[in-house]
Amino acid sequence: MKNVGVLLSGCGVYDGSEIHEAVVTLLALERNGASTVCIAPDIPQHHVVNHLTGQPTDETRNVLVESARIARGEIMDITHVRTADLDALVIPGGFGAAKNLSDFAIKGKDAEVHPGVRRLITEMADAKKPIGALCISPAMLAKVLEDRHPQVTIGNELGTAEAIEAMGGGHAVCEADSIHVDTDNRLVTTPAYMIGTSICEVAAGIEKLVKKILEMA
Amino acid sequence: MKNVGVLLSGCGVYDGSEIHEAVVTLLALERNGASTVCIAPDIPQHHVVNHLTGQPTDETRNVLVESARIARGEIMDITHVRTADLDALVIPGGFGAAKNLSDFAIKGKDAEVHPGVRRLITEMADAKKPIGALCISPAMLAKVLEDRHPQVTIGNELGTAEAIEAMGGGHAVCEADSIHVDTDNRLVTTPAYMIGTSICEVAAGIEKLVKKILEMA
Repeated sequence: MKNVGVLLSGCGVYDGSEIHEAVVTLLALERNGASTVCIAPDIPQHHVVNHLTGQPTDETRNVLVESARIARGEIMDITHVRTADLDALVIPGGFGAAKNLSDFAIKGKDAEVHPGVRRLITEMADAKKPIGALCISPAMLAKVLEDRHPQVTIGNELGTAEAIEAMGGGHAVCEADSIHVDTDNRLVTTPAYMIGTSICEVAAGIEKLVKKILEMA
Repeated sequence: MKNVGVLLSGCGVYDGSEIHEAVVTLLALERNGASTVCIAPDIPQHHVVNHLTGQPTDETRNVLVESARIARGEIMDITHVRTADLDALVIPGGFGAAKNLSDFAIKGKDAEVHPGVRRLITEMADAKKPIGALCISPAMLAKVLEDRHPQVTIGNELGTAEAIEAMGGGHAVCEADSIHVDTDNRLVTTPAYMIGTSICEVAAGIEKLVKKILEMA
């Protein structure tokens, strides 16, 4: 049985992991015979957003603790994750990938990526293990793997696509229900809710991504 | 297109809606051609549980605001929901159903159900519109519809099943990947994570529930 890490960034599209993307990823992985291990860094969230109003609040929350909601309590601190124990890694989207796992939402091409996330992505890529990334998360792959010129999806937002290219990557045009495969770097990406307008459409892309990742693992 | 309400109770299995159950419900509804409207009451949560440790914290959170995380911001206050606009209702599980939508987790058979939830369930039942309930949520159906002797699943926890029967309902034995249909009361229930041990197993039951609910609507 293949063991796949699912890297979370909180719990909610505006300040954490996009919940539909995370759950559909877990379901697709298990339906295709993989075991899963949820992973997150033990750090404060960049901020907390009221998802009813879309406005930031004055609360503080922790990425690992909030991610544990999606994981039903079964989650690993990224510090303790050994690349040797994983056959593949999938990173769902949501602004948490660009605010907590990295600061791409604030700094664009000059983003810094959390050191634990940087380590895991680099080690997976070095070990030729496949990495899947959804929605805005491919921006982190573009940053961490910038010397390898990764080709990834990001949706059709011009500024984001330009930032990917400024980091040395390539932006692949792709529909929400489809995937792009960077064979050289063993990356599979899908735009998900960057452009998707329904959970069905997004799920179709994620299911293709998961099948491809497991085929490559 | 059939329009189905999905009644949420927060965001996280220990103090709100069970996230996998809620997302799989939304996906199954849309894949089967329904439109969905997420619904929650605008009330404080009973408490907030740290999902990493399982321990309550001293935070306060609001059920509508946290449910909006699962709904990606598109959610209605239950006060404004008109039964006439819904063809069916589905209530995912999670402790929120027994701590926020009702106090079944504290009072068992003597539980009170939030007045807005009580109104919606009663009106749906009076209008002969189907109601689906997952996991612990059927306990609310048993309480609100106690004069109609509903037959529902609840999993194999003896105390919970006894409370259902003390309220005048009947406990139907059922596997997590299956459903029970109370034809008279037009209720469809599945144990989900009350007994399910994987997202695949739980999703199988939810997908059957959704198909049945839409067939009845």
